[in-house]
Amino acid sequence: MRTVEWDHTQHKVSMIDQRQLPENLVVVAFEDYHQVAEAIRSMVVRGAPAIGAAAAFGMALAADRTPTNDVTSLLNSLNEAALVLRSARPTAVNLDWAVRRTMNAARRNVDDLQKMRAAVVSEALSIADEDVETNLRMARHGAKLLADGDTIIHHCNTGSLATVEWGTALGVIRMAYEQGKHLHVLVDETRPRLQGARLTAWELTQYGIPFEIISDNAAGYFLSTGQADKVLFGADRVAANGDVANKIGSYMLALAAWDNQVPVYCVAPTSTIDLSLASGEFIPIEERSPDEVLNISVGGQVAVPTGARARNPAFDITPGRLISGIVTELGVILPPFKKSIRQMIEQVDIEKP
Amino acid sequence: MRTVEWDHTQHKVSMIDQRQLPENLVVVAFEDYHQVAEAIRSMVVRGAPAIGAAAAFGMALAADRTPTNDVTSLLNSLNEAALVLRSARPTAVNLDWAVRRTMNAARRNVDDLQKMRAAVVSEALSIADEDVETNLRMARHGAKLLADGDTIIHHCNTGSLATVEWGTALGVIRMAYEQGKHLHVLVDETRPRLQGARLTAWELTQYGIPFEIISDNAAGYFLSTGQADKVLFGADRVAANGDVANKIGSYMLALAAWDNQVPVYCVAPTSTIDLSLASGEFIPIEERSPDEVLNISVGGQVAVPTGARARNPAFDITPGRLISGIVTELGVILPPFKKSIRQMIEQVDIEKP
Repeated sequence: MRTVEWDHTQHKVSMIDQRQLPENLVVVAFEDYHQVAEAIRSMVVRGAPAIGAAAAFGMALAADRTPTNDVTSLLNSLNEAALVLRSARPTAVNLDWAVRRTMNAARRNVDDLQKMRAAVVSEALSIADEDVETNLRMARHGAKLLADGDTIIHHCNTGSLATVEWGTALGVIRMAYEQGKHLHVLVDETRPRLQGARLTAWELTQYGIPFEIISDNAAGYFLSTGQADKVLFGADRVAANGDVANKIGSYMLALAAWDNQVPVYCVAPTSTIDLSLASGEFIPIEERSPDEVLNISVGGQVAVPTGARARNPAFDITPGRLISGIVTELGVILPPFKKSIRQMIEQVDIEKP
Repeated sequence: MRTVEWDHTQHKVSMIDQRQLPENLVVVAFEDYHQVAEAIRSMVVRGAPAIGAAAAFGMALAADRTPTNDVTSLLNSLNEAALVLRSARPTAVNLDWAVRRTMNAARRNVDDLQKMRAAVVSEALSIADEDVETNLRMARHGAKLLADGDTIIHHCNTGSLATVEWGTALGVIRMAYEQGKHLHVLVDETRPRLQGARLTAWELTQYGIPFEIISDNAAGYFLSTGQADKVLFGADRVAANGDVANKIGSYMLALAAWDNQVPVYCVAPTSTIDLSLASGEFIPIEERSPDEVLNISVGGQVAVPTGARARNPAFDITPGRLISGIVTELGVILPPFKKSIRQMIEQVDIEKP
């Protein structure tokens, strides 16, 4: 199944509860957009493209299920849903982008209530379908960057679970592997929520791609001892100058790669690029509950003294100067990014606010 | 009590079992040097200066308890003990240094069996006492580098628990705090064994120094957003050019500090400096059991899929170019290290192999 799906018969959104992996593969279904917003917030679903699709389906629920006979009142309800869904998580711009697309679909159909309902659902379905297609395109472009025999350090989870299907950075690795290249992945465990150790390791096991899990802080060792050839990760938002907001730890990883002349590729669809922000310093960084850091045990033993506090920023900014290329569905964008990103984006008809 | 202690009445070595902190404060006692070697290997005791003292007391046990009436046979037994203790862990040079000192004490007393036994015990006691004095001196030198209001990122544990008493990098922080400076510590949790979240957090709680725990991969965020003023850590071995082997993650932390013009201070006694190695690439890096990485759970949930493998290097090399100063008991050594380290060391009468 897809990570996020629209159930045509029951008019529900169903998704894999990623918090329960790798122990249990559980699918949950929602009938109300508030539940979807909460699922995004609590990370039932995570990964920028996946939460974009989830938010779109949240809008579809609002369009499909709001009890009204009036177009204006439905539009108001959709605006309310948009507000709730957009505020679920601040960093990934895909959420905003997907909500905007569905709202625009509604606004194009103000003449007919049923058409408006259907248009929003249809736009959400398009977003999901396009995501799969976009990922396959990125994977084909990115696979060319990987050589037979490469060892790749990968951060967080950017696979099927982070998208509707196939994945971004992990999708590139999967494509190159399916093309017959021998690859080895060093999987950053990705503290605090361990998306690497839990989700990427689970996906790689299923694809049969050889991998080893490492502590995030060990990447520098493998890079400086010549044991890694490429670094790959996704993005939650890319600023106009190529600065990348991605899962916490990406910056230190990119820096260690840069210090050892190892290329760093960021794999993200153009929907992740936010031309309205000149640089990464304007990207809002979510700070999540300290419990995610404190709630750790090793070998069954409590690790943190009672009463200890923690800080838990969920993302950081990797400056564009550390990135060798941004792999999009349109091709690989190369530095200098300030020019190349705008040129690439101007080719496509991005949905405007 | 001290982290490692000689029990004069019972002729035993007692130490705090650091694997059980912060949940339980348990003291274990050993009568045989093989047990001490195993305690070092399994990290009952850890931290370069502490394992140096532990190894010295392991030698003291061998000297004190080996049943023989013959000086040559005792010397042979001591040589055997030296071999076993030295091989317990490869990276920290203090272990080697401490064993060498006790062996030399034995060799100076080949004329009398009882004198030889007593000399080794006495040398081990000196190593432990000197460690405390050395730490206090380092703390006084280092405290001058910290300003009132500083936020310090600290990696691993370098406190009382990493030494016989007081600590190296954490000792500097403690001294500056006791001098009345307002400090805040961002405690790297230090995966995989969480010496930061478990031990440093426990010590800071006892000293009343304000702190917050962070994931190791979050340090770059705090450094790049101007939320950290200094980076401090210890060392397991310092090469002649200032390259520092320290707990895995130190390199990426130092790199992130360097990229944001934040000073990095390494705090280590001169016994940690190994002039026989021209640079860090010659320092042996221990790779420990993958279980230390895999054996993690978060919120009580198993995190890693069954059958997954891991890599677990326990140390990395921070190039001297990233280090602003090495704080020793003789003063702060400043770059260029190739010259300054040798000059500093030539002042002292280091025990030769």
